[in-house]
Amino acid sequence: MIGLGKMGINLTENLIRNNNEVVAFDLNEDAKKSATKLGATVVDSLEDAVKNLDAPRIVWVMLPAGKPANSTIDSLSELLDQNDIVIDGGNSFYEDSLKHNEILKNKGIKFFDVGTSGGMSGANHDGNFMIGGDDKELFSYIEPIFKGIAEKDGYLYTGKAGSGHYLKMVHNGIEYGEMQAIAEGFDVLSHSPFEYDNEAVAKVWSHGSVIRGWLMELVENAFSKDPKLDEIKGVMHSSGEGKWTLDEALKLQVPTPVIAAALMMRYRSLENDTMSGKVVAALRNEFGGHDMDKK
Amino acid sequence: MIGLGKMGINLTENLIRNNNEVVAFDLNEDAKKSATKLGATVVDSLEDAVKNLDAPRIVWVMLPAGKPANSTIDSLSELLDQNDIVIDGGNSFYEDSLKHNEILKNKGIKFFDVGTSGGMSGANHDGNFMIGGDDKELFSYIEPIFKGIAEKDGYLYTGKAGSGHYLKMVHNGIEYGEMQAIAEGFDVLSHSPFEYDNEAVAKVWSHGSVIRGWLMELVENAFSKDPKLDEIKGVMHSSGEGKWTLDEALKLQVPTPVIAAALMMRYRSLENDTMSGKVVAALRNEFGGHDMDKK
Repeated sequence: MIGLGKMGINLTENLIRNNNEVVAFDLNEDAKKSATKLGATVVDSLEDAVKNLDAPRIVWVMLPAGKPANSTIDSLSELLDQNDIVIDGGNSFYEDSLKHNEILKNKGIKFFDVGTSGGMSGANHDGNFMIGGDDKELFSYIEPIFKGIAEKDGYLYTGKAGSGHYLKMVHNGIEYGEMQAIAEGFDVLSHSPFEYDNEAVAKVWSHGSVIRGWLMELVENAFSKDPKLDEIKGVMHSSGEGKWTLDEALKLQVPTPVIAAALMMRYRSLENDTMSGKVVAALRNEFGGHDMDKK
Repeated sequence: MIGLGKMGINLTENLIRNNNEVVAFDLNEDAKKSATKLGATVVDSLEDAVKNLDAPRIVWVMLPAGKPANSTIDSLSELLDQNDIVIDGGNSFYEDSLKHNEILKNKGIKFFDVGTSGGMSGANHDGNFMIGGDDKELFSYIEPIFKGIAEKDGYLYTGKAGSGHYLKMVHNGIEYGEMQAIAEGFDVLSHSPFEYDNEAVAKVWSHGSVIRGWLMELVENAFSKDPKLDEIKGVMHSSGEGKWTLDEALKLQVPTPVIAAALMMRYRSLENDTMSGKVVAALRNEFGGHDMDKK
């Protein structure tokens, strides 16, 4: 396991609980200590990780998408032997995964791009895995790993290399839309003529309603800690997959207004004031003499 | 039970299974036969329904929102006695429910507006109920009914009259957004460079993923019958609640772009061609000489 962050450390625990031997590596000392406590063999370098595994090795990369994952997979392409297996379980962009597949394939190394869902709790037990890879037969070889750590029916071989991360990307696009829909509903309720208990609403919607689902349970959880979310700001960061889904929809010319609006609302939330707001205010003033709010 | 349509007949079965005696009325003869088979006492008029119940009567109206529900509740206000109880379990607009509450209150009749979720299967067992009504103490009197027919934790007293249907309205607005988000995701997948099995995708997403929920299970079900939905058209009808949620958001000036876009996509789907499309095509031609598709 390369990478012992929030997802990697939980996956390590899940893997060990399911009778896998894990050799673990991270740059962070605390993460290494945690992995040692869980029973992993902790090493100090990628090289040592490779040395501590018998061939054919299975190396699970669980790092932030982009440079961290990319450079690690590049290094592994130099360190590993033919028929070793690299699993990228992070949120890499699927086009990066296609590149990783080519680089590794040229060395005879096998690659699986694995979209991982279910959050930290899913990484720890009963997770969700979307597994792409060109070698379908080899998937049978690694399948027992996923059978152990996934929710029942919670893993799928999705086809050629890239298809796992592509599916995870679209999964996250849907997630953006669903989260914004839920959020808008609670926003309307908070301005409504009635007095709703947000936690009670999320709870009743989680039990038998059409819109029940894990996101509704999570929002119930959030409201249980902070009934009106008074303690936090409505600033919505994002880590890329929603944008990639929209990029892909634009490339394919597929209309996805809900995913687009959800992403735009995230970007809007990052700004205290907007240029577009100033432009509209200025135009209203230009043609109609309407007041502008001055700084 | 007044109204034995898809929801009313299932609720009748649910109520009888949970040891309630049900007097049932509908204009449709087949519906009446079904209710008789389920063990309901079937009557031929609202008047007979009222006669067959002991005071204080509980009359559950389960009719389409608007005229059918409104005129029936009007009639009941004439037929019922003080302290009788009217439950409107349909999707009435909350402002109609506020009117019904006033009309009935003037006669000393009690009113609960109950948003019902969970679809036909929820009506039949383990349903979801959002219950508004001015008389909170009286809610305890009718609570055992809901305890029986609802999913565990699947009913909530939401506050004053109108608050039940208001909450159901917003629930449906969220539903519009979530459905469109899921739909857009599968639209991207169907145009993607990979070959996905829609049913398998919906299934894996239903087991341990962040976006698991009942709507994902339902779409898995739909794909199991028709793997690419080749047999149906992408025409999206709606029955009002999404529009009401948007109306309400506009009234309150709450930004709800996802719910708005979801509703607009429904309207777009009802049109084979659009005036807006013609206007944009004509403008591109006017300024740039771009080709227009001719009829």
